[in-house]
Amino acid sequence: MNLHMHRGSSKKAGLPPGTVIYVGSQKTEKTRLKIINYTAACFEEKEAESIEEIINSTGKQGITWINIDGLQKIDVIEKIGKRFNLHPLTLEDIANTEQRPKMEDFESYLYIVLRMLQYNQQENAIVSEQLSLILGANWIISFQENEGDLFNPIRDRLKSDKGKIRKLGADYLLYTLIDAVVDNYFAVLEHMGEKIEDIVDQLIDNPQPSTMQTIHNLKRQNISLRKSIWPLRELVNSLVRSESELINKTTDIYLRDIYDHTIQVIDSAEAFRDTISGMLDIYLSSVSNRMNEIMKVLTIIATIFIPLTLIAGIYGMNFAYMPELKSPLGYPLVLLSMAIVTVGMLFYFRKKKWILQRSLK
Amino acid sequence: MNLHMHRGSSKKAGLPPGTVIYVGSQKTEKTRLKIINYTAACFEEKEAESIEEIINSTGKQGITWINIDGLQKIDVIEKIGKRFNLHPLTLEDIANTEQRPKMEDFESYLYIVLRMLQYNQQENAIVSEQLSLILGANWIISFQENEGDLFNPIRDRLKSDKGKIRKLGADYLLYTLIDAVVDNYFAVLEHMGEKIEDIVDQLIDNPQPSTMQTIHNLKRQNISLRKSIWPLRELVNSLVRSESELINKTTDIYLRDIYDHTIQVIDSAEAFRDTISGMLDIYLSSVSNRMNEIMKVLTIIATIFIPLTLIAGIYGMNFAYMPELKSPLGYPLVLLSMAIVTVGMLFYFRKKKWILQRSLK
Amino acid sequence: MNLHMHRGSSKKAGLPPGTVIYVGSQKTEKTRLKIINYTAACFEEKEAESIEEIINSTGKQGITWINIDGLQKIDVIEKIGKRFNLHPLTLEDIANTEQRPKMEDFESYLYIVLRMLQYNQQENAIVSEQLSLILGANWIISFQENEGDLFNPIRDRLKSDKGKIRKLGADYLLYTLIDAVVDNYFAVLEHMGEKIEDIVDQLIDNPQPSTMQTIHNLKRQNISLRKSIWPLRELVNSLVRSESELINKTTDIYLRDIYDHTIQVIDSAEAFRDTISGMLDIYLSSVSNRMNEIMKVLTIIATIFIPLTLIAGIYGMNFAYMPELKSPLGYPLVLLSMAIVTVGMLFYFRKKKWILQRSLK
Amino acid sequence: MNLHMHRGSSKKAGLPPGTVIYVGSQKTEKTRLKIINYTAACFEEKEAESIEEIINSTGKQGITWINIDGLQKIDVIEKIGKRFNLHPLTLEDIANTEQRPKMEDFESYLYIVLRMLQYNQQENAIVSEQLSLILGANWIISFQENEGDLFNPIRDRLKSDKGKIRKLGADYLLYTLIDAVVDNYFAVLEHMGEKIEDIVDQLIDNPQPSTMQTIHNLKRQNISLRKSIWPLRELVNSLVRSESELINKTTDIYLRDIYDHTIQVIDSAEAFRDTISGMLDIYLSSVSNRMNEIMKVLTIIATIFIPLTLIAGIYGMNFAYMPELKSPLGYPLVLLSMAIVTVGMLFYFRKKKWILQRSLK
Amino acid sequence: MNLHMHRGSSKKAGLPPGTVIYVGSQKTEKTRLKIINYTAACFEEKEAESIEEIINSTGKQGITWINIDGLQKIDVIEKIGKRFNLHPLTLEDIANTEQRPKMEDFESYLYIVLRMLQYNQQENAIVSEQLSLILGANWIISFQENEGDLFNPIRDRLKSDKGKIRKLGADYLLYTLIDAVVDNYFAVLEHMGEKIEDIVDQLIDNPQPSTMQTIHNLKRQNISLRKSIWPLRELVNSLVRSESELINKTTDIYLRDIYDHTIQVIDSAEAFRDTISGMLDIYLSSVSNRMNEIMKVLTIIATIFIPLTLIAGIYGMNFAYMPELKSPLGYPLVLLSMAIVTVGMLFYFRKKKWILQRSLK
Repeated sequence: MNLHMHRGSSKKAGLPPGTVIYVGSQKTEKTRLKIINYTAACFEEKEAESIEEIINSTGKQGITWINIDGLQKIDVIEKIGKRFNLHPLTLEDIANTEQRPKMEDFESYLYIVLRMLQYNQQENAIVSEQLSLILGANWIISFQENEGDLFNPIRDRLKSDKGKIRKLGADYLLYTLIDAVVDNYFAVLEHMGEKIEDIVDQLIDNPQPSTMQTIHNLKRQNISLRKSIWPLRELVNSLVRSESELINKTTDIYLRDIYDHTIQVIDSAEAFRDTISGMLDIYLSSVSNRMNEIMKVLTIIATIFIPLTLIAGIYGMNFAYMPELKSPLGYPLVLLSMAIVTVGMLFYFRKKKWILQRSLK
Repeated sequence: MNLHMHRGSSKKAGLPPGTVIYVGSQKTEKTRLKIINYTAACFEEKEAESIEEIINSTGKQGITWINIDGLQKIDVIEKIGKRFNLHPLTLEDIANTEQRPKMEDFESYLYIVLRMLQYNQQENAIVSEQLSLILGANWIISFQENEGDLFNPIRDRLKSDKGKIRKLGADYLLYTLIDAVVDNYFAVLEHMGEKIEDIVDQLIDNPQPSTMQTIHNLKRQNISLRKSIWPLRELVNSLVRSESELINKTTDIYLRDIYDHTIQVIDSAEAFRDTISGMLDIYLSSVSNRMNEIMKVLTIIATIFIPLTLIAGIYGMNFAYMPELKSPLGYPLVLLSMAIVTVGMLFYFRKKKWILQRSLK
Repeated sequence: MNLHMHRGSSKKAGLPPGTVIYVGSQKTEKTRLKIINYTAACFEEKEAESIEEIINSTGKQGITWINIDGLQKIDVIEKIGKRFNLHPLTLEDIANTEQRPKMEDFESYLYIVLRMLQYNQQENAIVSEQLSLILGANWIISFQENEGDLFNPIRDRLKSDKGKIRKLGADYLLYTLIDAVVDNYFAVLEHMGEKIEDIVDQLIDNPQPSTMQTIHNLKRQNISLRKSIWPLRELVNSLVRSESELINKTTDIYLRDIYDHTIQVIDSAEAFRDTISGMLDIYLSSVSNRMNEIMKVLTIIATIFIPLTLIAGIYGMNFAYMPELKSPLGYPLVLLSMAIVTVGMLFYFRKKKWILQRSLK
Repeated sequence: MNLHMHRGSSKKAGLPPGTVIYVGSQKTEKTRLKIINYTAACFEEKEAESIEEIINSTGKQGITWINIDGLQKIDVIEKIGKRFNLHPLTLEDIANTEQRPKMEDFESYLYIVLRMLQYNQQENAIVSEQLSLILGANWIISFQENEGDLFNPIRDRLKSDKGKIRKLGADYLLYTLIDAVVDNYFAVLEHMGEKIEDIVDQLIDNPQPSTMQTIHNLKRQNISLRKSIWPLRELVNSLVRSESELINKTTDIYLRDIYDHTIQVIDSAEAFRDTISGMLDIYLSSVSNRMNEIMKVLTIIATIFIPLTLIAGIYGMNFAYMPELKSPLGYPLVLLSMAIVTVGMLFYFRKKKWILQRSLK
Repeated sequence: MNLHMHRGSSKKAGLPPGTVIYVGSQKTEKTRLKIINYTAACFEEKEAESIEEIINSTGKQGITWINIDGLQKIDVIEKIGKRFNLHPLTLEDIANTEQRPKMEDFESYLYIVLRMLQYNQQENAIVSEQLSLILGANWIISFQENEGDLFNPIRDRLKSDKGKIRKLGADYLLYTLIDAVVDNYFAVLEHMGEKIEDIVDQLIDNPQPSTMQTIHNLKRQNISLRKSIWPLRELVNSLVRSESELINKTTDIYLRDIYDHTIQVIDSAEAFRDTISGMLDIYLSSVSNRMNEIMKVLTIIATIFIPLTLIAGIYGMNFAYMPELKSPLGYPLVLLSMAIVTVGMLFYFRKKKWILQRSLK
């Protein structure tokens, strides 16, 4: 996945900066628009048919949250941009869904872009979606690539007036949204952790060539995960240190809490990285051990039977004068000497600890 | 262990921030509450039945240390929080036992969270427990996950008025508690060091496939250890540099002493890391050496006996005209030539140093 | 390629600093000179025969962009240098095409040197060309090694007055040029990413000794790529932070956008680096696995047939008294015992999972 | 050695901070006390029986250097501490011989702890001893674990008034002592360097399984060396930058000289580290090469003789109708064909460069 | 080489700081002294017999450059030191030829020490020589270990008044000297680059055990190279940032140019480092591939011939009742079945892609 991340970007080569082009894969779902408006006292939620409907709904008292799912319709982004005076580069970044998480302060608004991760069980892959958040004086606009998100519990809290969310400003809503995204990273890490534990067990019990492939996939998932979360740390940090008037000082302590979570996520991803590279070592050493075992079996068989074969070969020679051949004791004595050679060899191997440890158990 | 560390955190996804939920494993022991109150002149220790009893005991002259073992009863944390005006995020962090060590200055109090480590001999694992410390003007509250701690010597010193502990403030008590935690890390490192030495010896004498697993476990223990101690350095450093009025300037030198210890702990953990990765190299090279030895034995045997078998095979052919077969010297001469071939091969192997070094000793 | 990068530099050893010597490979194409002059209202483009013609065309109103393809004619560089008061070290750097990307502020002008990359499909190599940009008050001079560049879309936008490019200053043109170069890096990264994916697939399906060579080539391409882009980050950063009056404050936001792109390019190059080093691991482990398979086949064959050969050898001995030989059941019983040995061995190998997993499928 | 370094520290767990406990191995030698007093004009040296004698000798004009060998007698440290107003933590650090090198400024004195290294030829190990230095206004106290040190040349220079040592202050004496310790590191590095060169030669000529163990030991010595010298850099740097009035500005240039030496020591230790890790690669590759050689021999022998054995086997069959057996040319022709097979195989191996390169030379 | 670099330093252990002792290998050539004096208008060059002659020649108008080849005669250094008021530590550093490159500001003069590198083709080694430069108000003194240097082109430029060298101050001469040293590094890097390319080609065509040794040598050369150039960066940087009055502001731009070159040298050395470590991977994988090929040949031969030998063995048994033996078709049928087994095996190996890929081509 991460190897293709610049497909989109190169589509745009040569175009003037500020050109709004959707670079994600053209998903079939239509764009969905939702507007929520609330004050401490009231709450209103509306699904809109057209972007004009949304724009007409703005400008009310209280805090307004516009959520847009689907970025294919460029005119939606452009109309929003016009209504809220967004910089052309912001519009370009919203549509270009390969952004690195970052925070940009345009004075009249803050532009924040981050990545929502999802562990796709079937494909055993981490699916990544871009979330753009724009924080104005008393409004937030969120752009998502697909329908369905992590924010339903937040909408419920807004509706039911749980906690103090409706009493606080748009910056607190921003915090709540980012917090939901970061909290979700823990779920992704858990899935990854379980996957890693499964493979470690398998590595020890029964290593397979395909395991190597699985380790490699995990490694790439981890690389792509780290590409999402390392810049997030900077992002949250610059939010905390931001001098912007859009962020209330009382929100800082909540942002610092997200910062701590981000560090925790990074710590875990780094620990996974170490563990994954350790898995490779285990795999390679278990392959070596298997080889050793195979070679032991071969060596034991060859070392016992080749000398016996020589003895048999000698008494198969057709010399006219071989006195042993005439003796009635010749045959039993040869069989006996063969038995002695065999037992001797077995003792030698046991002394060398080749037998009875694992190979012939 | 470290792979599961976010189980708890994801339990909380979607809940409003500040929600106090205990995320550790539900331990059966009940919550134990203890309050200690002391001045330079007197000392009082009391085990309380209920949190209300504790709260009623506060507000006295001197320094008060409330210790709470067990975090299952959320109302205990909440009542403490109400009594001492703790921020909701602090309460959330106390209950969420997967915190990264950190220090937070809430002006009216400092919140410190760190991890107590214990080497569990039976399970050969490092057990980690979260310790939350809250330092107020003349009080400290400590939250632990389980009963039993490292602080009995400190309680004894308080009781018996050893040293100057009773003459100094709550910040000095805080130092004493953190110092006890850090000192305990040295014990954990010692256990780990002994374990490592055992395995190094074993690696050289008799490497086993299972050794690989043990090395891997040590590596994971080391990763989890480092996750506890690296943030501790920052924590202690920010305590030293703190401008908070809760920390007396005279305590700084003691905190710097803890800082030095923390660095020492980190140094050792890093040295262990290098040693553990070196062990892997030794293991792999000893596996290779074993393989070499096995291959030598096989090659020596095959190289000596296969040519002899050919000689025997030749004189086992049934050609009508094979003059050697008729000669009475044929058989002894063939045996002689076999002996010469064998001796020659042995000389060749000795020259190549394959024999008499280790393989046939 | 990167191994030869200092050939040129050593050509100059011992010469006084500021000596302008072209150190690139002497390309046969002649030097091409082009001058573009524009204001918001008008646009003029002219290909010049001689450098004097260019110099005479300067000094007009509006913004002038002089582009020079080919650096063999040192007098062109020197005349330009004289006309625009360039420092001798700048002229030296323009001609010496092994510069590390950098930005230098000479107060009256900014000197910027960076590298244009191109993925050459046939030779499967990244071709690098030096681009020198000089930004003056209302003019830009660009020096390129070869004809043909990435700037035709920019020329078209200038001509057709698309976007606001003609309304803004020379610093915006500078931004546009650098942006085109950085955007092109994404295309190079894409090619590289596709190449990597191809090899990963091949590694798993059918590893070849030649794959190692391909991986090594990729690694060197990545090293040379990183040598171009890491200094670019510094370069763009010092442009953003520059106090120079030549750069308008309103251009800063665009430069910061390039900065973000540069970081994204670096991120991808670093991710490729990890992936390439992971490919090496896959390759080595697949070689080990092949070896294991080969050894299994050898061991199975040897372990089954060597004992059988011994049995045959024993009954080929010529002892006078071997009662089995006389028995009419001897031959069938021996064949039967051989069959039993074979079946037993096969069972043993199946139990050890050597058969039916992959090797004999 | 480095694995046990915390034994001592854990002895102290639970004791109040500032408790002076000797944690080194209880060496049998008694504590030796020596006091040197000098001015530019006179020099006095005295070995004292008791600590009281020392203390009574202090307070004279000029500069006083008290040296204490052996730390078992805690009361000596405590009395010194009382006489010179040392902080309890300083006394604790002097007695705890597992300190990390550091410098602490207690305003009235500087406390410096560093490690003296010695290469023990017999045990082939680096022996480390703690040196505590306390610099007051016109006195220095040095604490060493064992008798015998690196300071005799300094005592001679003091006695014979060589150089300007007697004309300068206690801070210059401090510099001289630290300089002697750092200079000694070069000797340790030389020994290590010689050892490394020996092993590199041995690795190439005749790699042994025991070499791996030697490399591992070198690695651990290097780790322990680096644990001593990295903090030293910080130490010397903070001396140079120190604002303390105890250090004269004219001494700074000498301290900077030590700093340069420290960097040089670190450079060498880092270079050794790289070399040691390179040795491991050489060792592993030479093990692989040996394996290759062994396998070549086996393969050549098997490939030549197994087909010949088949030919002999065929003509050893007892079929009634085998016309070749009757022919008088049969036997010589079979021998001839065997010779042809052998020669063909040898040609094949030579073409593959298996022979005449090394294996059969 | 780099392993012995501290031999000299330990010679000096115990001596008072500032003791001037030559620690290089005692080279037989005598010390050569040369003095150059120039102004914009005139130029004078003189080879002197004795140091007194040199000292008497100083103090003239214009800029004086004293060059001393050979450091065995300590009195030369001491007399220079006395004449120019050099600090004892400077004299010590001049004579101790194992200095790390550094710059020291003694206010009345700057002391600069760096290393001149030379690629010795015969011994295939990088030879390093120490160059000490002392910059005073209008004089420079240079100390070199051996006769012959990189400065003849500079002397020619001074003599023939090429460029502006004679018009500028001593600081510009200093720049010219350092520039010559750094430019020479590019030549060393080129040699190294060619060597590396040769080995890479050899690695792929025909890897040899001796290649490992060559790689190791390259690695050590690279380590020693990096020890010379990394500190050089700091050195040049501190020259650029220096507040010293001895360096004119107009020289800064030239020093920054050297800085850029230094970075380029470092970049290349780092790229070489990566390439060298990649070569090791190629070597190890090609050893593994060779092993795989050898094993394939062995396995093919054994797998084809061992079953055939069994068949021959069976019909070599001496049972009285073996009906096949009597049949006239027995012999041809057995030969046919052998041919079938052989062809079947060959098909199996082709299917497994063991044949026709490389091993039997």
